[in-house]
Amino acid sequence: MADSKALTTRAADFSAWYNDVIMRAELADYSPVRGCMVIRPNGYAIWEQMQSALDRMFKDTGHQNAYFPLFIPQSFLAKEAQHVEGFAPETAVVTHGGGKELEEPLVVRPTSETIIYAMYAKWIQSWRDLPVLINQWANVVRWELRTRLFLRTTEFLWQEGHTAHATEAEAEAETLLILGLYRQFMEEWMAMPVITGPKTDSERFAGALRTYSCEALMQDKKALQAGTSHNLGQNFAKAFDVQFQTREGGLEYVWSTSWGVSTRLVGALIMTHSDDKGLVCPPRLAQWQVVIVPIWKTDEDRELTYAAANNMVKELRAAGIRTTADLRDMKPGAKYYEWEARGAPFRLELGPRDLANQSVMLARRLGGKEAVPMAGLAARVHEEMATMQRALLDAAKARRDAATLRNPKSRQEFIDFLEANGGFVYAGFCGDPAVEAEIKAATKATIRCLPSEEFRSPEAPTTCIWTGRPATVEAVWARAY
Amino acid sequence: MADSKALTTRAADFSAWYNDVIMRAELADYSPVRGCMVIRPNGYAIWEQMQSALDRMFKDTGHQNAYFPLFIPQSFLAKEAQHVEGFAPETAVVTHGGGKELEEPLVVRPTSETIIYAMYAKWIQSWRDLPVLINQWANVVRWELRTRLFLRTTEFLWQEGHTAHATEAEAEAETLLILGLYRQFMEEWMAMPVITGPKTDSERFAGALRTYSCEALMQDKKALQAGTSHNLGQNFAKAFDVQFQTREGGLEYVWSTSWGVSTRLVGALIMTHSDDKGLVCPPRLAQWQVVIVPIWKTDEDRELTYAAANNMVKELRAAGIRTTADLRDMKPGAKYYEWEARGAPFRLELGPRDLANQSVMLARRLGGKEAVPMAGLAARVHEEMATMQRALLDAAKARRDAATLRNPKSRQEFIDFLEANGGFVYAGFCGDPAVEAEIKAATKATIRCLPSEEFRSPEAPTTCIWTGRPATVEAVWARAY
Repeated sequence: MADSKALTTRAADFSAWYNDVIMRAELADYSPVRGCMVIRPNGYAIWEQMQSALDRMFKDTGHQNAYFPLFIPQSFLAKEAQHVEGFAPETAVVTHGGGKELEEPLVVRPTSETIIYAMYAKWIQSWRDLPVLINQWANVVRWELRTRLFLRTTEFLWQEGHTAHATEAEAEAETLLILGLYRQFMEEWMAMPVITGPKTDSERFAGALRTYSCEALMQDKKALQAGTSHNLGQNFAKAFDVQFQTREGGLEYVWSTSWGVSTRLVGALIMTHSDDKGLVCPPRLAQWQVVIVPIWKTDEDRELTYAAANNMVKELRAAGIRTTADLRDMKPGAKYYEWEARGAPFRLELGPRDLANQSVMLARRLGGKEAVPMAGLAARVHEEMATMQRALLDAAKARRDAATLRNPKSRQEFIDFLEANGGFVYAGFCGDPAVEAEIKAATKATIRCLPSEEFRSPEAPTTCIWTGRPATVEAVWARAY
Repeated sequence: MADSKALTTRAADFSAWYNDVIMRAELADYSPVRGCMVIRPNGYAIWEQMQSALDRMFKDTGHQNAYFPLFIPQSFLAKEAQHVEGFAPETAVVTHGGGKELEEPLVVRPTSETIIYAMYAKWIQSWRDLPVLINQWANVVRWELRTRLFLRTTEFLWQEGHTAHATEAEAEAETLLILGLYRQFMEEWMAMPVITGPKTDSERFAGALRTYSCEALMQDKKALQAGTSHNLGQNFAKAFDVQFQTREGGLEYVWSTSWGVSTRLVGALIMTHSDDKGLVCPPRLAQWQVVIVPIWKTDEDRELTYAAANNMVKELRAAGIRTTADLRDMKPGAKYYEWEARGAPFRLELGPRDLANQSVMLARRLGGKEAVPMAGLAARVHEEMATMQRALLDAAKARRDAATLRNPKSRQEFIDFLEANGGFVYAGFCGDPAVEAEIKAATKATIRCLPSEEFRSPEAPTTCIWTGRPATVEAVWARAY
């Protein structure tokens, strides 16, 4: 049942506001298990919409789903040196099964490269077996010290793609294909603009040759890494001895990739669009795109409006619009308030007068209310959804661009901007990891990525913003989640 | 790559045949983790089809999906006395996380009642919050000693529904609603006939008031429990203190249910329909309902047949038929052999002569081959699929009925039939659990269920087949997986 207290505002306390939005919309809840959340039906419905769109994209590009074991023998993790260093400290370990102590402890997968490459070694013999293009929808566990609903939880849901190829070029093309799909999904479905590009070595996935990421900016001007795509080179192939006979008869290690997005995206969606009334959800990912609220006083009107609402549900669903009618025995005002908090993009209010006029009152989650004729309603709703989807992306882009500084003139301007505004700063970097660490210590900002060409500044920076040495690259800094 | 060795036949060794079918069709594989399997893309695609059909049924009857934590504090399991007794010996236990020993060990969920009721206690306050109709798609772990691919694995995938209601009658109606949906799914989608009815007390789910199951008969005449639906009464509500304010202002415990089917269904599907050539899959659940194989000798014909195959894929997909073209550089015969093993319901062979005739050769997985005109092909394939779907169900029903004995005249006939034929035996039962145990020890047969009215014999048995005492009920016995 909806709470009638106002939400904390974004201005007052962004972090408390974020939790309030989640609680009020019943998207998730804290569980009795340390660091683990419960994804409630309203939140899970958004994740299902995300899964369905991404799964379609993966399948349309030739990927298939499979499922690998939750448990990984502890010794497997150790086979790739960087990988074990990165993940071993975060693992949950099963030491007992069926009432007995296990001979070898099992790690609950923090990611599945190691168990998957053990299988690929068995399945891949020849160039004819390549490429292997497999994705898995699964839960993973990383023992996080500080957790936040959706953004960082001990257990989370994700998809992890794991592909194997005959050549280095094919693996790199796959890594970039997926990075592009992620970006397309985030922009076209989540209405969330992102910057893409490779990570620096210090921010790379443990065991990867190169990690590319999608970086978004939240309303509090903090960056959020929304998805990563890794070119693993031959690192895991060598660790697990995944070799294939080439077309020419030689023997070579496969080239591989891995890539993933997680339920963190639900948190990103919330923090990108929502307002002080609650969740704002892009229509393409909303559980219910339209909620119909009948308005009545007499029993006769109740019957009429309910029947009309049910017909409208059928009509709009037939037109591919996810529609529900709220027929609960509650005052309309309380329903409006609740559906606003839950982020329904459009509400249709339907009273006896509307019925008489053959019209319905359309109320937009982004504001504005208007009587629209019942004739052609589905087409009108489709237009409204497209408009809202575009408006959300435009607004998010405008917010991000307003919070972006390019080519600061001095180290001090760089520091001051981050301190005063947060946001993204594009500047030259000498490429020295020690400098990267020093900047992080001084400003709390990290290099989010080395932006791909289309994101780079028209004039390439020539000097490192921190050291004044020649810049080897342009980097994007931000304080991040 | 397909192996060219013939499969073990069902007659020679049913169990080896079952494994051969799975390996040849690349449905699953053994993993390096004890008792855990890998579900390969061909097997996972069947599970995805199953999920999609079941999920639609659940949603159409008002259920929503959610996600609860993988880990359960060990103390939670102990709150319901029968539940802990049933599940504690089978659990995998996490004792370490993030490099430290945990204060309280965490159990990897064997089923989620306990963690879910802990949340329901928080969410449910009033009759207005009821019913709660939640389902979860998840992995669960039960430390099984003897495992078999799909049928019994340490980790498996399933859905578990957990609902809470205001009255006992509503909970019972929900339990039976789901039992009916399961039966409908098994018959209409899996083409697998089932008997439904309550379990005896000794076969009940740990913590349930009543357990209902769907029982199928495999080709080796062994029964398989394919799905269960439990009326939990107020057992878990009391253990977790889930109370609600009634409409009249009183305070009462909720009445609840839980129900599940798992990846075991993929095993059931394999053992119900497949033959000595490999998998036979009902069209409604097949990853590819139609596979097109072009046949060519010259480069020119290759171009023509490939183009025609690609057009045909588009045309059939547009008509809602899951179609793929096998354009690999391999001999057609090798492709036929492989797709038969993988259970594709229909193959379309397309050579230059077929193109000239504007026809295509349609080969059925169940046997028979026929030239059919390209005009109206999609409609023809839809007809063929409906025919095959019906034929599989009819054949499975006929096999089951031929392996069923009703009202044996003596204890010896009962024993002899089970010994010689396996199958189902319907007979009177006095209701004494000690007798049930004695029969099991003597015949290895268990009571699969107490059949619902429509399955019962026209003349109700009057005496217990084992003791000669008055029968309180008719029961169905079988040796089972």
